[in-house]
Amino acid sequence: MYTLVIIRHGQSQWNKKNLFCGWTDVDLTEKGFEDARAAGRLLKKEGYTFDICYTSVLKRAIHTAYAVLDEMDLNWIPVIKDYHLNERHYGALQGKNKTEMADKYGEEQVLQWRRSYDVRPPVLPDGDERLPENQPVYKEIMKTVKLPHTECLKDTVARVAPYFEQVIKPEIQKGKKVLIAAHGNSIRALMKYIEDMPEEEIVGINIPTATPMIYHLSDDFRVIDRSFLGDQEAIKAAIEAVKNQSAKSSGK
Amino acid sequence: MYTLVIIRHGQSQWNKKNLFCGWTDVDLTEKGFEDARAAGRLLKKEGYTFDICYTSVLKRAIHTAYAVLDEMDLNWIPVIKDYHLNERHYGALQGKNKTEMADKYGEEQVLQWRRSYDVRPPVLPDGDERLPENQPVYKEIMKTVKLPHTECLKDTVARVAPYFEQVIKPEIQKGKKVLIAAHGNSIRALMKYIEDMPEEEIVGINIPTATPMIYHLSDDFRVIDRSFLGDQEAIKAAIEAVKNQSAKSSGK
Repeated sequence: MYTLVIIRHGQSQWNKKNLFCGWTDVDLTEKGFEDARAAGRLLKKEGYTFDICYTSVLKRAIHTAYAVLDEMDLNWIPVIKDYHLNERHYGALQGKNKTEMADKYGEEQVLQWRRSYDVRPPVLPDGDERLPENQPVYKEIMKTVKLPHTECLKDTVARVAPYFEQVIKPEIQKGKKVLIAAHGNSIRALMKYIEDMPEEEIVGINIPTATPMIYHLSDDFRVIDRSFLGDQEAIKAAIEAVKNQSAKSSGK
Repeated sequence: MYTLVIIRHGQSQWNKKNLFCGWTDVDLTEKGFEDARAAGRLLKKEGYTFDICYTSVLKRAIHTAYAVLDEMDLNWIPVIKDYHLNERHYGALQGKNKTEMADKYGEEQVLQWRRSYDVRPPVLPDGDERLPENQPVYKEIMKTVKLPHTECLKDTVARVAPYFEQVIKPEIQKGKKVLIAAHGNSIRALMKYIEDMPEEEIVGINIPTATPMIYHLSDDFRVIDRSFLGDQEAIKAAIEAVKNQSAKSSGK
């Protein structure tokens, strides 16, 4: 049996501001840092340990990984940063206020971009500084890979699943204890792939921030169980909070 | 021409306590973190950037690397952690107070352990919890490599130089901009190797903490120049401080 731990980053600066974030490289808030640290302490207390950590190239996930590992006294393990684990790319909505976008495109349209499986927000316009090709972090990658200018959740799954299958899964199968620190939608993508979850189910899943999600997997990688670590009542409340937040803001 | 930047970690918790540190995994002080952040801001202001960072498996160096890269908005670059860049192993002196050791072994003997090129402190005794084989971080490595129970500076050079030659140098030659965040003696080892410095010269070199050291190297890896980035008068004072500190404490 394998154990896999996945954690969504703590609260980011843009959660408060009600802005679509996506690939924008926004940092954690003080609360976000502290919640990530608390998750690390909890994992340590419960006897977890890790041999390797995977995260995105976005600092809110990287800093979550660092905070968790620091509390576990595991600073020395490899932390692999890869754009495949990035949040869903939110296209032209990135950096925009949700209310303003609803005014511009209509409430119904914005809801569809956020909650459907396969409807993409508008692409970032040519020449926009938010485009991957205009950011140093993606320069090297862009030499061999075409990066998105917008994504629906289906696109995110198509990017995350092969990375999990080809890069992360073999490490787990070697017996490595793996931590993944990622984002609301890249974690949804992982869950959909790992659990072979129907589209209509995954769009309804809400993942609490900075809460360790534990998978037990059989030797042939079937899911034995999935649970959140911590006070179960508090976690239920956190899931409700994410759900309700999503009703009035992007939450991503 | 190549540019290589090397930085010694900021002040650690044990600097104050006058303890021999070596491979003991002690964290930075608040000042250590802040000085590392200041170094990152300075590097950014002066137009430096990095593609990859190498550091030790010790948190005082890892946290220095993270702080520098965070200030430079380079959290996403790979940070490779390797024991080859660890501080010199201080054997049975690790965790011991310098004054107590001078009382036990004599001032002259302690000075020789600290300032000679090839005299090793006593080894850690069998079964000691400070031995590499008793620490999770070295478990995997110990399967293929015999790790030291004490080191003189010559041993540290013998460990650091091949790692630089075989792992770091090829990256520089590929055109990668490299940052190394390491320790007083692993940096001395790098300097000795890169500059082909005589033994009697390297033992007299004092490296200020959290101060970027810039090497310009020719295409065939000869040293064009070496300098410290920042206020030159302040750096001179910092070097003197390290030197004077070494007169009364390990400083390592």
